[in-house]
Amino acid sequence: MENVPIVLFEGYSFDENDKYYARGSCTLIKGPQNVIIDTLNAWDGDELTEKLQRYQLQPSDINYVVCTHGHSDHMGCNYLFKHAIHIVGYDVSHTDEFYDHDFKGGEEYVINGDIKVIPTPGHTSQDVSVLVCTSQGLYAITGDLFECEGDAQDENLWQENSVNVDLQRANRQKILSIADYIIPGHGPMFKVPKF
Amino acid sequence: MENVPIVLFEGYSFDENDKYYARGSCTLIKGPQNVIIDTLNAWDGDELTEKLQRYQLQPSDINYVVCTHGHSDHMGCNYLFKHAIHIVGYDVSHTDEFYDHDFKGGEEYVINGDIKVIPTPGHTSQDVSVLVCTSQGLYAITGDLFECEGDAQDENLWQENSVNVDLQRANRQKILSIADYIIPGHGPMFKVPKF
Repeated sequence: MENVPIVLFEGYSFDENDKYYARGSCTLIKGPQNVIIDTLNAWDGDELTEKLQRYQLQPSDINYVVCTHGHSDHMGCNYLFKHAIHIVGYDVSHTDEFYDHDFKGGEEYVINGDIKVIPTPGHTSQDVSVLVCTSQGLYAITGDLFECEGDAQDENLWQENSVNVDLQRANRQKILSIADYIIPGHGPMFKVPKF
Repeated sequence: MENVPIVLFEGYSFDENDKYYARGSCTLIKGPQNVIIDTLNAWDGDELTEKLQRYQLQPSDINYVVCTHGHSDHMGCNYLFKHAIHIVGYDVSHTDEFYDHDFKGGEEYVINGDIKVIPTPGHTSQDVSVLVCTSQGLYAITGDLFECEGDAQDENLWQENSVNVDLQRANRQKILSIADYIIPGHGPMFKVPKF
């Protein structure tokens, strides 16, 4: 079965009337292993459950939850997925058992032959991205390593929220060099230009 | 009303039969503002709700959730507290609205005259601690700035999990110099020795 990622919720961030609103992207990979990447804000559980039903899935059908990093708008609904292994930044766990995995040393976490999780720090010190190999090309689901397609033109969009700009820049370049499509943390999916 | 912190769940972390288990401390401040500090793993919602009932509280009675940092064993049950303002590391939000607060620049967040949240990074780049002023002295609820009382004797206990050892050491010293009691991330509350 083809593991093409489905963007369940397109992330956003914007100012309006001196207020700031944000929600991370939420992506589903439906296949031999059902994977959710980033789980919105803590108030979004009903909306997420309803959206999954459109894909004939219950929360208990999800095998892996991957949170690209530990910010609240990317891990708010992890509680829904009690049957899943949770990969939250560099931590891998189920209930109160934490599994040994060396993201810090660069080790990839292989979910299956087509899906793996790799460390891509910079936005925080412990970010991960999910790579999905499909017949249409390689998808990278990156969280806030990329805020949105336009953040290469306006670098403030990502650098203002980065704890390590040099490291984030290097990991952005790495993803751009290998991915065909990027699902960023707070904007629509975009195709990577190839030269 | 006196705001003495109540440790609802004492955090732990230990190895057993080559497996590693962890859960963060979870603390309640019951008063004019009801505050929960750190919300366990994502599987612990029922247990946390039950414990609150012993203090005549429903999740909807909680006004503030403070997560000392964005690791999964400290923010797993944020979803329970839909009426609260959530302070997760340096982010302050309710639903998808994020409030402007400069923890990065050192600004304190005042919940009331006796309770404030201050930035104490080092374990991650965006940790906070809660300070509670009582007639018995000053309580500091620190998350993993302190793993447990013994981590001053065995510094590996905290340094192995630190993203910035120098910064964490400085913030540990700051807390030790002002607090009378510390509730650490993964062990019992302890009294700070005074010389």
